[in-house]
Amino acid sequence: MSFDRLIEKIAKTQNPTVAGLDPKLDYVPGYIKEKAFAKYGETLKGAAKALLWFNKGLIDALCDIVPAVKPQAAYYEMYGYAGVKTLYKTQEYARKKGMFVITDGKRNDIGSTMEAYAAGHLGKVRVGAEEYEPFLADALTVNGYLGSDCINPVIKVCKQYDKGMFVLAKTSNPSSGELQDLKVGDRTIYEIMGDMCEEWGKELPGKYGYSGVGIVAGATYPEQIEILRKRLPHTFFLIPGYGAQGASAKDISAAFDKNGLGGIVNSSRGIMCAYQKEQCDEKDYAGAARREAIRMRDEIMGYLNGVQI
Amino acid sequence: MSFDRLIEKIAKTQNPTVAGLDPKLDYVPGYIKEKAFAKYGETLKGAAKALLWFNKGLIDALCDIVPAVKPQAAYYEMYGYAGVKTLYKTQEYARKKGMFVITDGKRNDIGSTMEAYAAGHLGKVRVGAEEYEPFLADALTVNGYLGSDCINPVIKVCKQYDKGMFVLAKTSNPSSGELQDLKVGDRTIYEIMGDMCEEWGKELPGKYGYSGVGIVAGATYPEQIEILRKRLPHTFFLIPGYGAQGASAKDISAAFDKNGLGGIVNSSRGIMCAYQKEQCDEKDYAGAARREAIRMRDEIMGYLNGVQI
Repeated sequence: MSFDRLIEKIAKTQNPTVAGLDPKLDYVPGYIKEKAFAKYGETLKGAAKALLWFNKGLIDALCDIVPAVKPQAAYYEMYGYAGVKTLYKTQEYARKKGMFVITDGKRNDIGSTMEAYAAGHLGKVRVGAEEYEPFLADALTVNGYLGSDCINPVIKVCKQYDKGMFVLAKTSNPSSGELQDLKVGDRTIYEIMGDMCEEWGKELPGKYGYSGVGIVAGATYPEQIEILRKRLPHTFFLIPGYGAQGASAKDISAAFDKNGLGGIVNSSRGIMCAYQKEQCDEKDYAGAARREAIRMRDEIMGYLNGVQI
Repeated sequence: MSFDRLIEKIAKTQNPTVAGLDPKLDYVPGYIKEKAFAKYGETLKGAAKALLWFNKGLIDALCDIVPAVKPQAAYYEMYGYAGVKTLYKTQEYARKKGMFVITDGKRNDIGSTMEAYAAGHLGKVRVGAEEYEPFLADALTVNGYLGSDCINPVIKVCKQYDKGMFVLAKTSNPSSGELQDLKVGDRTIYEIMGDMCEEWGKELPGKYGYSGVGIVAGATYPEQIEILRKRLPHTFFLIPGYGAQGASAKDISAAFDKNGLGGIVNSSRGIMCAYQKEQCDEKDYAGAARREAIRMRDEIMGYLNGVQI
């Protein structure tokens, strides 16, 4: 009912990073696409199969050194229900390989509907006498614009199934400040959202000091990360924006405590497209992803004194 | 590139309402579930088939008198990828029957990822030499917490494919005020979000005075609906909260202009579960839904002087 399982995987790998699996078809090596299209045609199903094979190669290459993957729901929905099946199969494969799965869905709705999202993504669903896990995430990203009604159903499912969530506080995109930086009295909206998460998190305490209600805090806003870390001592940070979006390891170092805990840094394109940047043989895309993941780990760990639990 | 098509359907049916298709398995009559489970087992696929058959019956019963349906993504994701296939098949059937399809997904993300959501839900996606519509919505609900970066990709797709969006402003749930009612200077957050929508809407002007960037404004907050209507003369309102959530027709009448335009009122449980309330034969669930839809239409139209375009 917290991020304890995630933190233990981070400590074991000594690597507070997560590989974002946001597989655009453009990112997939030609030989994989050709094979998928030959078998399933240039169809949504063909695309979805190509993404799945691509993801499996990445997971194989990363699972012993990277603690978690973060599939981004949008890139699967983009290929229709076949794509959503690939989301499930990717989660299933990552779980089998021992990785912590964060589904980046930014889901949000009113109470009764949020129960459906929480059950579908993090919990179990009953059909007649049987129970199923519709999707296989260990944590889900959530948008808190609707307030507690949206978060409480997720807390309930997290308690029951030992899962966690990350609520959007300060997002990594250029226009995030339009709403998030506005001031209500002496607090910005992102601080207010962060404070609510620290409060909600009391329902999901963790043994390493961090609750199961984390926040998303973009690496592209290092000052805000520093502010949020000071305000929110029990809140774990999911930190996108490293690499392709322009943030450096130094930018995110303020998210971490003296034990090297407190956050996990995402890289998506940087890892998925490492073979393009390296200009290596595309058949070595997974090897290039592993080399980039190691480089990223070492760069970030250069700012921490190890990860101790 | 606006809500013109929706408005024309509303005028034709003289009915500014939308049937929410949020099909929990509990809402589905027993005989439909039995048939689906007999064929597909008590599985996610069996559940998904039951939902599809249930939806098709509702669409058949409503398509000549109700202009639009609003499937809620959560209730499909709840049954895994099989459920998401039912979302697609429901959209496909509603479109075939001439209904306007609003996918209630409250999607949101940073620019490049939001492009994937917009293409997947409202646009087309290329696979090799072919183009596909992964999902079949005419409009999508969106959460604006991330600012313009999240909205602009949707505007682009709406322009290209003549689609629309509804952005959350003041939601219908009890805790919506925790964030949305906070004041920044002399404006609440929901007013600020509304003002942004009025501005974004300039990119998607409509010939009946309403843009393609609508808002979600909960019927459970009639005073806020009145405030928002005055502020946002070109913004179309999607109004949930009628019926099961407790709001009346009078509560939402302020959303409409003198021509009976300006909003569309959603009822989900009220329509889907009408047969339970009526205590009629469950095999007449679609008939009961139609009777409730007519009652709702007449009640709401009682506060308007017709719908003129």
